[in-house]
Amino acid sequence: MSLDDKTEKPHDRLAKALEADLSATDALILQRMASENAPRIPEVTAHLVGAGGKRLRPMLTIAAARLCGYQGSLHHNLAAAVEFIHTATLLHDDVVDESKQRRGRPTANLLWDNKSSVLVGDYLFARSFQLMTDTQNLRVLSILSNASAVITEGEVLQLSAAEDLATTEDTYYKVVRGKTAALFSASAEAGAVLAGAPEEQISALHDYGESLGIAFQVVDDLLDYLSDAKTMGKNVGDDFRERKLTLPVIKAVAKATPEERAFWVRVIDKGDQHEGDLEHALELMKAHGSLEETRQAAIGWADRGRARLAILPAGDLRDMLDDLADYVVARLR
Amino acid sequence: MSLDDKTEKPHDRLAKALEADLSATDALILQRMASENAPRIPEVTAHLVGAGGKRLRPMLTIAAARLCGYQGSLHHNLAAAVEFIHTATLLHDDVVDESKQRRGRPTANLLWDNKSSVLVGDYLFARSFQLMTDTQNLRVLSILSNASAVITEGEVLQLSAAEDLATTEDTYYKVVRGKTAALFSASAEAGAVLAGAPEEQISALHDYGESLGIAFQVVDDLLDYLSDAKTMGKNVGDDFRERKLTLPVIKAVAKATPEERAFWVRVIDKGDQHEGDLEHALELMKAHGSLEETRQAAIGWADRGRARLAILPAGDLRDMLDDLADYVVARLR
Repeated sequence: MSLDDKTEKPHDRLAKALEADLSATDALILQRMASENAPRIPEVTAHLVGAGGKRLRPMLTIAAARLCGYQGSLHHNLAAAVEFIHTATLLHDDVVDESKQRRGRPTANLLWDNKSSVLVGDYLFARSFQLMTDTQNLRVLSILSNASAVITEGEVLQLSAAEDLATTEDTYYKVVRGKTAALFSASAEAGAVLAGAPEEQISALHDYGESLGIAFQVVDDLLDYLSDAKTMGKNVGDDFRERKLTLPVIKAVAKATPEERAFWVRVIDKGDQHEGDLEHALELMKAHGSLEETRQAAIGWADRGRARLAILPAGDLRDMLDDLADYVVARLR
Repeated sequence: MSLDDKTEKPHDRLAKALEADLSATDALILQRMASENAPRIPEVTAHLVGAGGKRLRPMLTIAAARLCGYQGSLHHNLAAAVEFIHTATLLHDDVVDESKQRRGRPTANLLWDNKSSVLVGDYLFARSFQLMTDTQNLRVLSILSNASAVITEGEVLQLSAAEDLATTEDTYYKVVRGKTAALFSASAEAGAVLAGAPEEQISALHDYGESLGIAFQVVDDLLDYLSDAKTMGKNVGDDFRERKLTLPVIKAVAKATPEERAFWVRVIDKGDQHEGDLEHALELMKAHGSLEETRQAAIGWADRGRARLAILPAGDLRDMLDDLADYVVARLR
């Protein structure tokens, strides 16, 4: 990674600009993660919260608050709260279905058992509400408690849509708006509300966060099918093996010949997967242009998000948020 | 159950006195349980929330608010919120450890898989925070978000204390205060705060709720070892098989001879249980008076709770709360 500002990644530039705020947030996260009565809790969270994640959601909160002129320090509480909600959903995502285990697949929670993942996730949820309550701002509480409900609805909807070839793009976007975009939009919106920004700025930052979140998830789902070093450690084909109906698959299924359809029914609906099926799925997606269409969709969402920034005060922070939307999509290049 | 008021159970008398409030709460529960985007959610919760549970926690909230002269309708939101928190913890308790499953024991969530239990529990948590936020009362939000964190700490502490013979009564009570009493005390306290009660009444209702919760859990743990019809469908020995260090066991282990200790090490620490072990454990508990001591402990907590009611306005509601403390312990007779 270059130290030259021009070639530095937008994410890193934003992180550098918000360094003091992010450090204060990290300190608060460490402090609120602790439990006098249950010392096991920080053990479980430390490897998640401290793992040098991208901190995208806290950055959105802090940048939104700053962009709207916030001068206090409660945006750190909000930033810690959104990171806790995010970490809690990661922990709960790790809980494995019994049926899935029985198929002999590796479990996602090797380090900790199901029960610990659930309880520590619950602890972080509770802590996040304490952090929000600290702000004494009822509108912020309303935004983030609504987002928490919507996130879970998205995850439940995803459970019902999994392994179901009839899933449409509409349903896909409903899932993505819930499980991913709701927290992105709430993170940005809550920062603006805390800053007492005018309604049009609050609304613009909400929309920016939402579009960024959708772009982010579409890119993630696309990367799951792209097999080069840029995927940074992700296993190619995880979604395929878990029979998830993500955008590239939905697009390929929509254009499938009867013969291709039989293939999708076998590998997704029935889960009867063999050696070479992932490669064949990839060929079908390429043949129908599904991967390229998915890429274009992501770029479209990023553009939509950037367009909403125009209303906000011009300056470095706005430019960096603008770049960030590009960057989310640039993971594809 | 008799219709004669004199022989009617205190719980039923209280439920009758609060009938209109409880109906309004039930309506709110049904309304907030619904999910437009994920219709599966009310399916999962209906059999829990609608299963005619005792509604002890919502009753505490409503009774506390009424006792302190509350005239509005936001106590229904609070009552629904505490029932949602309770139901969410039940759902999350149902998530099974992989290790436990491997021992071939029946799972607690036969109807729904682990993932659904987790997500729907999360949904209820989020909904409970929305309901609390509706009250626009920051102190109430603070009480209930703190309680949520403490509940989880209690459950995590219980996980670490399980299967560990060194667990003391101190640790046991720490677990109980967290996993059970924290929500009882918060339910009563929040009702009083919503009513704008004087501090001494708020504090008295908090303490009453806490003692009632501890008594309730101690009785529950005792009933797990008592094998007659009064246990109402509970399986005798569940805690024993799950190697939980509850009060009767802790008391028996404290008085164990070296030979008896070896038995406890085998069945609890090592989990090497055979036919007849539960019966032998019961004999040891009876021989050392552990069951009777546990019963006395529960009565002591109930008495402590009742004593704190003296400061509250005299009348039917206070009398019924007084009776309720007796009733919780009377499950033992």
